[in-house]
Amino acid sequence: MKTALTIAGSDSCGGAGIQADIKTMTMNGVYAMSAVTALTAQNTTGVRAIMEASPEFLAAQLDAVFEDIFPDAVKIGMVASSDLIRVIASKLRQYGARNIVADPVMVATSGSALINSDAVTTLKQELLPLCSLATPNIPEAEVLSGIEIKNRDDMQKAAEMIQSQYGCAVLVKGGHSVSDASDLLYRENGFEWFEGKRIDNPNTHGTGCTLSSAIASNLAKGFDLCESVRRAKEYISGALAAQLDLGKGSGPMAHNFDLVSKFADENC
Amino acid sequence: MKTALTIAGSDSCGGAGIQADIKTMTMNGVYAMSAVTALTAQNTTGVRAIMEASPEFLAAQLDAVFEDIFPDAVKIGMVASSDLIRVIASKLRQYGARNIVADPVMVATSGSALINSDAVTTLKQELLPLCSLATPNIPEAEVLSGIEIKNRDDMQKAAEMIQSQYGCAVLVKGGHSVSDASDLLYRENGFEWFEGKRIDNPNTHGTGCTLSSAIASNLAKGFDLCESVRRAKEYISGALAAQLDLGKGSGPMAHNFDLVSKFADENC
Repeated sequence: MKTALTIAGSDSCGGAGIQADIKTMTMNGVYAMSAVTALTAQNTTGVRAIMEASPEFLAAQLDAVFEDIFPDAVKIGMVASSDLIRVIASKLRQYGARNIVADPVMVATSGSALINSDAVTTLKQELLPLCSLATPNIPEAEVLSGIEIKNRDDMQKAAEMIQSQYGCAVLVKGGHSVSDASDLLYRENGFEWFEGKRIDNPNTHGTGCTLSSAIASNLAKGFDLCESVRRAKEYISGALAAQLDLGKGSGPMAHNFDLVSKFADENC
Repeated sequence: MKTALTIAGSDSCGGAGIQADIKTMTMNGVYAMSAVTALTAQNTTGVRAIMEASPEFLAAQLDAVFEDIFPDAVKIGMVASSDLIRVIASKLRQYGARNIVADPVMVATSGSALINSDAVTTLKQELLPLCSLATPNIPEAEVLSGIEIKNRDDMQKAAEMIQSQYGCAVLVKGGHSVSDASDLLYRENGFEWFEGKRIDNPNTHGTGCTLSSAIASNLAKGFDLCESVRRAKEYISGALAAQLDLGKGSGPMAHNFDLVSKFADENC
């Protein structure tokens, strides 16, 4: 079985963060490990409190993982401070990590800010150059490229700027208003649009985490970048289409939608 | 979809703790949430460092969960200090939590001690009386009952003592030397032996976490205690039989063994 590591925050309500990553990797047939950057007390209505891991403790988690079970892919999610980002970059270099996917999380689906501006600079300078792929949404792509994005052309321009500046491939995730939910994969040798499959579901807590860890799972299994993105989008479509409805805010997805039929005949 | 909450430590190498619980709940068709009591930097060879959550932060996580997505069952794993156990007991009472399964974790599979003696006293006095089930292994059952366990009769005596003293049902997990790996479920109105199904697999990291969270998942779905234990043992047998072999020490199980056939035809 292939292995994958998520480096991200913990979401107590289970729909985002390492919880979403572990569910996604497990459902995609990969063995999941995690290095926690911060604990959050949050639910579908917002983030209430954050308790960050110290740089030393994050390093200890990464050492424990890499020295024992080498991950075939690494997904990086919420990392709120420069010091933590530096630790991650240093450890990924030290161990020669491969198939690194960074979801440059800056704001939660619920609207809460998750990262400071200092950390954004370190993310750009230290982490993105090590990555196989970054998966910003529109606001994040605006921050990373420095340009405003209003349409598909802007998406392409921003993606090109990010790719050429940091040397990693980029998947810019389009919003409904900008690209009818189509995503753009931009690599050194070309680009590809993934046309949006509109699923009417207001419960989108953790979609960014889920997409990036599904891509990392597919990379771990040896699929190329384009096929990994295609399969990840298919997976997230299934998880959204299951129409799970939990919590008072924007709820989580059904990561285990595939198993619904298996358990449907349970009478208890 | 039914929901379940794990209150436990985080295992960076993904085989035990909340990672094992989330994998197990997800694979058993339940929506998983988590309140983290402590982060650990560990792998299959041992625990290297522990960073405990503060009592206030654990309380904030539990509030965030219970106020938004009420869990149909709760699994409690590693809780290392009296203060944290008191917070958990108080919040479970406050919210009227049900289907509570406590795995009284005291020592990791790798041999590392995970809880202090003060915490054991608080666990007995404050937490066990709230539980539907406690799932000690032989050494833990010895600590909880105060008697030495050398055979099946001792197991039964210890279980009876724990049940009558704390008012919760008990599943004493037998070791190979004591009961040929058979487990004893002891309730107020009787007891039942679950005969051991020997699976020759040295990789048992996280078996205790996995069994208790599988039982909690089944309770969440509405199965009675006996059927929940039976199904959980079936699940763990499958996870062990898949013979995953990762890490240099006692490795983790394949929680997603059910999906192996689904992904077997992937050529990449």
